[in-house]
Amino acid sequence: MDLKEYLNSKRLDIEKALEALMFPEEGLLAQHMASMRYSLFAGGKRIRPVLCLATAEALHADPTPYLPIACSLECIHTYSLIHDDLPAMDNDDLRRGKPTNHKVFGEAEAILAGDGLLTFAFELLSDTNVSGSLNSNDRIRIIHIIAKAVGSQGMVGGQALDIASEGKAIPFETLQFLHSCKTGALITASVQAGAVIGGATENQFKALTTYGKAIGLAFQIVDDLLDVEGTEEELGKAVGADVALNKATYPALFGLDETRKKAIYAVDNALAALEGFDDNADYLRELAKYIYYRNR
Amino acid sequence: MDLKEYLNSKRLDIEKALEALMFPEEGLLAQHMASMRYSLFAGGKRIRPVLCLATAEALHADPTPYLPIACSLECIHTYSLIHDDLPAMDNDDLRRGKPTNHKVFGEAEAILAGDGLLTFAFELLSDTNVSGSLNSNDRIRIIHIIAKAVGSQGMVGGQALDIASEGKAIPFETLQFLHSCKTGALITASVQAGAVIGGATENQFKALTTYGKAIGLAFQIVDDLLDVEGTEEELGKAVGADVALNKATYPALFGLDETRKKAIYAVDNALAALEGFDDNADYLRELAKYIYYRNR
Repeated sequence: MDLKEYLNSKRLDIEKALEALMFPEEGLLAQHMASMRYSLFAGGKRIRPVLCLATAEALHADPTPYLPIACSLECIHTYSLIHDDLPAMDNDDLRRGKPTNHKVFGEAEAILAGDGLLTFAFELLSDTNVSGSLNSNDRIRIIHIIAKAVGSQGMVGGQALDIASEGKAIPFETLQFLHSCKTGALITASVQAGAVIGGATENQFKALTTYGKAIGLAFQIVDDLLDVEGTEEELGKAVGADVALNKATYPALFGLDETRKKAIYAVDNALAALEGFDDNADYLRELAKYIYYRNR
Repeated sequence: MDLKEYLNSKRLDIEKALEALMFPEEGLLAQHMASMRYSLFAGGKRIRPVLCLATAEALHADPTPYLPIACSLECIHTYSLIHDDLPAMDNDDLRRGKPTNHKVFGEAEAILAGDGLLTFAFELLSDTNVSGSLNSNDRIRIIHIIAKAVGSQGMVGGQALDIASEGKAIPFETLQFLHSCKTGALITASVQAGAVIGGATENQFKALTTYGKAIGLAFQIVDDLLDVEGTEEELGKAVGADVALNKATYPALFGLDETRKKAIYAVDNALAALEGFDDNADYLRELAKYIYYRNR
């Protein structure tokens, strides 16, 4: 199976599981459930749950029973998008070509849909009726890894710093910290959750953490790149300079060529971290390259 | 120790533990941490964590090592207040006589402070370095009880229904469901968490759940009562009729006398549920009565 087929097949598994796990749109809370479902099923590549499942597979585990664990990562990712899009935050009207949650359901419900999805992730992670074969110590370890990654010293902190830095020139170190919190932490946690599911040794866990951090960084650098390259294509001119005035980005700080080199370097680091793993880690290797070559 | 002394002593224990557990106000995220701390330390009776600790004591357990579990309940309660106060929700400027979080830190940061506190609760609950003597199965059970109680079929769902019902006449059954989700669920979960900590038998767990539901209901009825009685005192006239037009409340639906009877009936049910418990449950009994007699 090539990566495209693999991604597609995993995406379908994840969406089927999400559909079965998520609250139905019925009863007095139908509107609230509809709001969560609207954003959860608005598309997306499901990269975080795929990373979790592919990591377990790299360790020769069958990840099928652990789909609900992977699904919790997508619930958290979706909550973060809903809250980031709010008028008080980035004030975005569109997400994946569709109206954002608050545009459809109103601001109050969008806040609550995010709150609900975040809480549902922990409900799912702590439900011993799903992914029942996970032992209790591993389950707690996964819950802790994820909670720490997406909390105030992780994803939420990164978004808080991003909001506080708007329109300000920030040093490169701050930018790096911001990205590692806002984007990197949940990606790394997705890999780590897969590592625990797969029964990783301490050394394997460390190597996979390095892999996760490296692809998290690559992901963010490429996001910055796509922003500029996309805009260049549309506008027919370089906009790096404008971008530099408003926000510290990799292209603004280092130029396009150097930024591309940094992205490739991060992907190489990710691949190097997997050196001790056999062919079962090939999808993880392909995923690392995919992050650089997506939309190219 | 009478209840007042007991409440005060427990409140101090909880605030000391929260102070030690909560992120310090330093580094790049100092403002975000300050925002969470502002609301977390804005006062309050800490009823939910006290209920958790008192329930463990009713079962002859020393709850001291489990203070962080109790603290997580206060983090969740505080998050719910911050989000409920937002302009898109109830749009409140004051909470406990102080400006609400978004008035001080802005709307974006208030949303993120809530997100951070909710996530921190799960970080705390899954941290095996705190409350370390809790066995893994009990820890997962507590996490699941709390996540379920405060999610979309509990607290978040109740708030969603409250927002959706604004300005509408809703049937009494809907009002009861709304209250049991919005207020009752976290109160009941606080008691249930204490029951797990205290090693409750299945029957004890059931009895304590009945107690929790009954005081949750009493709490909400008394809130409705205080609203009317408070306003009457201030305005020097009855405002039950006005209230009835806008929102279905117990006094609006049943009148003041009948509402008082319903509150006392709920407290009696709570006391009846504790019949099989010895003197160690006396603080739980006192707490049930206190809920009715507070501010009287």
